[in-house]
Amino acid sequence: MDFSSFLTSLGTSFIIFVVLMLLFAWLSTREGNAVVYYPNRMLKGLEPWEGGSRTRNPLAWIREALSSTEQDVINMSGIDTAVYFVFLSTVLGILVLFGIVLLPVLLPVAATGDGIKKNTKSTTSNGTFNDLDKLSMANIEEQSPRLWAFLIAIYWVSVVTFFLSWKAYEHVSALRANALMSPEVKPEQFAVLVRDLPNVNPGQTRKEQVDSYFKSIYPETFYRSMVVTNNKEVDKIWGELEGYKKKLTRAEAIYAESSGSEGTKPTHKTGFLGLCGKKVDSIDYYNEKIKELTQKLEAEQKVTLREKQLGSALVFFNNRVTAALAAQSLHAQMVDRWTATEAPEPRQLIWSNLSIKFFERIIRQYIIYFVVFLTIVFYMIPIGFISALTTLKNLRKLLPFLKPIVDMDAIKTVLEAYLPQLALIIFLALLPKFLLFLSKTEGIPSGSHVIRAASGKYFYFTVLNVFIGVTIGGTLFSSLKTIEKNPNSVVSLLAKSLPGNATFFLTFVALKFFVGYGLELSRIVPLIIYHLKRKYLCKTEAELKEAWFPGDISYATRVPSDMLIITIVLCYSVIAPVIIPFGVLYFALGWLILRNQALKVYVPAYESYGRMWPHMQTRIIGALLLYQVTMLGYFGVMKFYYTPILIPLPLLSLLFFYVCRKKFYKAFCHTALEVVSQELKETPQMDQIFKSFIPPSLISEKGEDEQFEDALSEVSRTGSYV
Amino acid sequence: MDFSSFLTSLGTSFIIFVVLMLLFAWLSTREGNAVVYYPNRMLKGLEPWEGGSRTRNPLAWIREALSSTEQDVINMSGIDTAVYFVFLSTVLGILVLFGIVLLPVLLPVAATGDGIKKNTKSTTSNGTFNDLDKLSMANIEEQSPRLWAFLIAIYWVSVVTFFLSWKAYEHVSALRANALMSPEVKPEQFAVLVRDLPNVNPGQTRKEQVDSYFKSIYPETFYRSMVVTNNKEVDKIWGELEGYKKKLTRAEAIYAESSGSEGTKPTHKTGFLGLCGKKVDSIDYYNEKIKELTQKLEAEQKVTLREKQLGSALVFFNNRVTAALAAQSLHAQMVDRWTATEAPEPRQLIWSNLSIKFFERIIRQYIIYFVVFLTIVFYMIPIGFISALTTLKNLRKLLPFLKPIVDMDAIKTVLEAYLPQLALIIFLALLPKFLLFLSKTEGIPSGSHVIRAASGKYFYFTVLNVFIGVTIGGTLFSSLKTIEKNPNSVVSLLAKSLPGNATFFLTFVALKFFVGYGLELSRIVPLIIYHLKRKYLCKTEAELKEAWFPGDISYATRVPSDMLIITIVLCYSVIAPVIIPFGVLYFALGWLILRNQALKVYVPAYESYGRMWPHMQTRIIGALLLYQVTMLGYFGVMKFYYTPILIPLPLLSLLFFYVCRKKFYKAFCHTALEVVSQELKETPQMDQIFKSFIPPSLISEKGEDEQFEDALSEVSRTGSYV
Repeated sequence: MDFSSFLTSLGTSFIIFVVLMLLFAWLSTREGNAVVYYPNRMLKGLEPWEGGSRTRNPLAWIREALSSTEQDVINMSGIDTAVYFVFLSTVLGILVLFGIVLLPVLLPVAATGDGIKKNTKSTTSNGTFNDLDKLSMANIEEQSPRLWAFLIAIYWVSVVTFFLSWKAYEHVSALRANALMSPEVKPEQFAVLVRDLPNVNPGQTRKEQVDSYFKSIYPETFYRSMVVTNNKEVDKIWGELEGYKKKLTRAEAIYAESSGSEGTKPTHKTGFLGLCGKKVDSIDYYNEKIKELTQKLEAEQKVTLREKQLGSALVFFNNRVTAALAAQSLHAQMVDRWTATEAPEPRQLIWSNLSIKFFERIIRQYIIYFVVFLTIVFYMIPIGFISALTTLKNLRKLLPFLKPIVDMDAIKTVLEAYLPQLALIIFLALLPKFLLFLSKTEGIPSGSHVIRAASGKYFYFTVLNVFIGVTIGGTLFSSLKTIEKNPNSVVSLLAKSLPGNATFFLTFVALKFFVGYGLELSRIVPLIIYHLKRKYLCKTEAELKEAWFPGDISYATRVPSDMLIITIVLCYSVIAPVIIPFGVLYFALGWLILRNQALKVYVPAYESYGRMWPHMQTRIIGALLLYQVTMLGYFGVMKFYYTPILIPLPLLSLLFFYVCRKKFYKAFCHTALEVVSQELKETPQMDQIFKSFIPPSLISEKGEDEQFEDALSEVSRTGSYV
Repeated sequence: MDFSSFLTSLGTSFIIFVVLMLLFAWLSTREGNAVVYYPNRMLKGLEPWEGGSRTRNPLAWIREALSSTEQDVINMSGIDTAVYFVFLSTVLGILVLFGIVLLPVLLPVAATGDGIKKNTKSTTSNGTFNDLDKLSMANIEEQSPRLWAFLIAIYWVSVVTFFLSWKAYEHVSALRANALMSPEVKPEQFAVLVRDLPNVNPGQTRKEQVDSYFKSIYPETFYRSMVVTNNKEVDKIWGELEGYKKKLTRAEAIYAESSGSEGTKPTHKTGFLGLCGKKVDSIDYYNEKIKELTQKLEAEQKVTLREKQLGSALVFFNNRVTAALAAQSLHAQMVDRWTATEAPEPRQLIWSNLSIKFFERIIRQYIIYFVVFLTIVFYMIPIGFISALTTLKNLRKLLPFLKPIVDMDAIKTVLEAYLPQLALIIFLALLPKFLLFLSKTEGIPSGSHVIRAASGKYFYFTVLNVFIGVTIGGTLFSSLKTIEKNPNSVVSLLAKSLPGNATFFLTFVALKFFVGYGLELSRIVPLIIYHLKRKYLCKTEAELKEAWFPGDISYATRVPSDMLIITIVLCYSVIAPVIIPFGVLYFALGWLILRNQALKVYVPAYESYGRMWPHMQTRIIGALLLYQVTMLGYFGVMKFYYTPILIPLPLLSLLFFYVCRKKFYKAFCHTALEVVSQELKETPQMDQIFKSFIPPSLISEKGEDEQFEDALSEVSRTGSYV
């Protein structure tokens, strides 16, 4: 790619971005679109437009995003989102500080070098260099004293990263502490998840076992326990019941609509997909089904609570200090029994994982790690295999009825272009879901933890495959000759390959932010889907809400792709400082646009009080380490005499990481006692707290929880509330 | 060393052992020696001889040792000693099970082989083999199918070790739990050591800071706190005072003794070592001094309590569950502040280490590890240097006044023989003390932990230097030629060297147990020292007690040397199964004789509730791993085709270690809550518990602790006792 085609692609992206932004400015002011552009505000009962006026400056959202405080973000979207902005602004700060120093210093140094001219003379290379290369380290001669400037720049980059990420860690830690010490009553702060219960003695129920155990240790603060049950069956029935209820409302809505024209009662067929079978009156049929299933559900609820108890329980305490203490302490002499951990929020509790045993959890974890490792390293093999199978020729052979369509010229061209990559495209689209599934299979009990785990896996996948893969892969074949002559290590290979791929990654970053963030802000896709659904599918309020409900900000893929950009920009920051402004733009635009989305669009699905941060910080330092090691290799390739001056840097990074981990990390795994010992605003309503943990499929329709008597204990209800 | 000289050395050792045992039987029945042979019983207020009769079977101690139960050991010597016996009997069990299977199977297989004959034919070796070698793997041909027997034996050895060490871990864990749940009130179970206190706010005392912090977290269970002070000065004065008190008692005793002959008052000179200076009346002088120092001590106590407060404190709770919870939980949002750990027993608290800061502790630890590493690897360099300097010639030159003595023939011979090793001997004698000093410098707050740390260091020193050093060193030069031809890895070098050194280690083990345990049982050296002191030095009761006080069983050196024996016997168990009976004898005799010593002689200096065990178990598995890896190398050297069958074994060992650590270890670091939630026999006397932690130098003579008001808090004294 030469300089002009790079400019063209950049220009195109920018134009797309401007168009999308204008589209957003126009669409977002229209009344009917408010649920797409302001769902978070509307769900919180606020006016979609601040001040209520709809006709306003099309760039008002920028002012609003910039003037919003961290507290606004916390109020609208929770601590996790606020932490994500700390992450964005930290990285932005790091890149701005790079740019301020590196651009004015390194660009002139590089531009006035003459490494490329010399190289061209000495080799017969057919000119892969381009105008951009003149602004990069590729334009510096080997052993040139100009390299000193680059060497010092690496130190500057490292020191800035250390300083800002330390500040950010302190800030996030304070955010977390403030959230945890809040005087609001939060149910999860009063509960502890206890797994690995030993077998019940004969003549004792599970409930008695748990209650007597915890009553003896916490005689005054133990409130009640909830034994975890196997809800598979009851969940299924409940799901069916809810489905029929939705269908009933829908049928009734259709009936009500049509009642103007004499009221034709909606009917449907009971067979497969409503295509065959007996034709029935929908409303009567659904009512029948609901009645039937409600009875079935009640029976199954009883059976579940009585007979499907598993070896774990949620234990409730009547003050949060005790719950925090219990979650951190060893209860049984054998570590694999009565293991207590903090209870996650009720909404993110993964019930099916709660009763996995201690060593099974560990074994599952290692198996998953191994599977992920295989996926990262060998994912191309099955995809290549599938690609080889799904050629046009095979398709025609296997599915002969497609022949007439496939043979059409236009379709043939498209298919020939895309079929080979189809498997890869589908794989990459499904990868986040696959990694989420794998992480869930590890046996993690909370949703936010699953997302953190999946996000880590996705990060390793992108960095290893996209960054290192593209870099090395791109030059592996071209430099095969030199490798044969002089076997290089991966590091120096990577180092050699970096400058050649600078333009590729520049374009990648630019595309990513202009097109990606343009789509993000304008929400074109959700808007179209919403309007289509509203027009042709949705009949009831609930269905409508489902159609516009925005979901959460989806860290599992967002954070790893930000991480990839950081890794790329860091690794190129000294080699080709031109990349820095693009990095700055990426994170500045990201901050601005996601601020708007966080305040107005996305609805958080959970609250983990900033537990994502240590992962982010670890990976920032990881990217820095990769950068330092690559630079060490690159300076070696440049045959710079003072390269060993860089050796302390990776060690410093490891030390910095170690100190951060020692100083901050534990407070992200556990709840510090000084934090939860703050006074509460009101006496906690223990029965409310207890009820909030009952899964919806087990809540009795009659509104009584007498049926819980069996599975859930009812001790010390009369006990003193703090 | 050929077979006959081995038998001679064995015979001599055995005769020495028998003589020492007879000596013991005779000496231990004499009234005057009771304090040397039965101090533990006497200090516990028991009759020295069971049943009170002195004239008895000289082998009665064996019967008593064998019939004693674990409970007897716990009563007389504590959990730590009982755990040491679990260790001894586990190792004994392992070795006996080896012997039962390996001896009848492997010896015939080896003896009927003809590897040595063949080797002798093919090489011109001048016959380093001997009769013992015929019973070892050295007598097996390369690639011989007989190697199958040895290969299966390695599996047997591993499985037996896994099984018995698992059983032992379970047993020790139960021992620890039982001891911790004891209904006796133990002061350390009610206290928590809190370090890394942040700076005090202006206008607040340290005491107020600590009290308000803990009162807010534990409003009902916090009792009181004791701020740690810098006791260096006050300890010094107190030490001087105690010294003068002792001298005074001594002078009075001398006076009383001499009063029969008209009563000459004892006098002494005040100058250096009592050799010069003014002559004074001792009793008057000491009384004067004591008066003076008492006043000084009181003043210094006040200053210490008021002005020398440091950044750590002991915090007391009025029930032990809360103390156990607090010791395991994170108190502050920043992990390096308010760090709480279990308080050690008052007697093993190392006051000077209590106020070392969080990161300083970590840094110190790594520095010490580095120093130990240097010591283990390079200790020969300074010793070689000193040895080179301290030749007879240099001695004569440097210290010319020694010339006439040094030139005497007899002395010259002795000096020439021992001078070169003098530095080494002194180094090895001082090494345990040096390692203890290093471990203490790490900043560890409890005495038992220092001993565990030192014992670990000593283990690595002995295994690396004695075992691997002797083995490889012995054949390094002789096999230098083969190394040049075919560079071997250390493992296969070790493997090759093992058979050649079998006899050396056989003799080593035999000497160690016959002579070592003979001396241990007969206590000849302490007996002679005691009698000498009693006759010539001791005048008072206190001095006499000091002369016979036996001290504790000194794990810091005892455990590592047992470990060395295990490592040696394990590594030779298959190569030269003849070593097994010697290993069995070592641990059987050790069990018997130390049982006697534990019940009757040694007085434990601390109680750590079996915390030494995980270290012992780790090192048993470590030795097994070393053995498995060496065997893998040795089978490789024997060119056995099925060697890879051994590869799963080291992995299995690592897995076993991992599972043990996961399942048991945490309960050895912390106190499990189910254990301390057991009921106490009586309401704890909190002021007694508090007072037991006051260091002796800070206890006021007046018996009031009003002076503690300043440093030690007095909150919630009226609080409810559980």
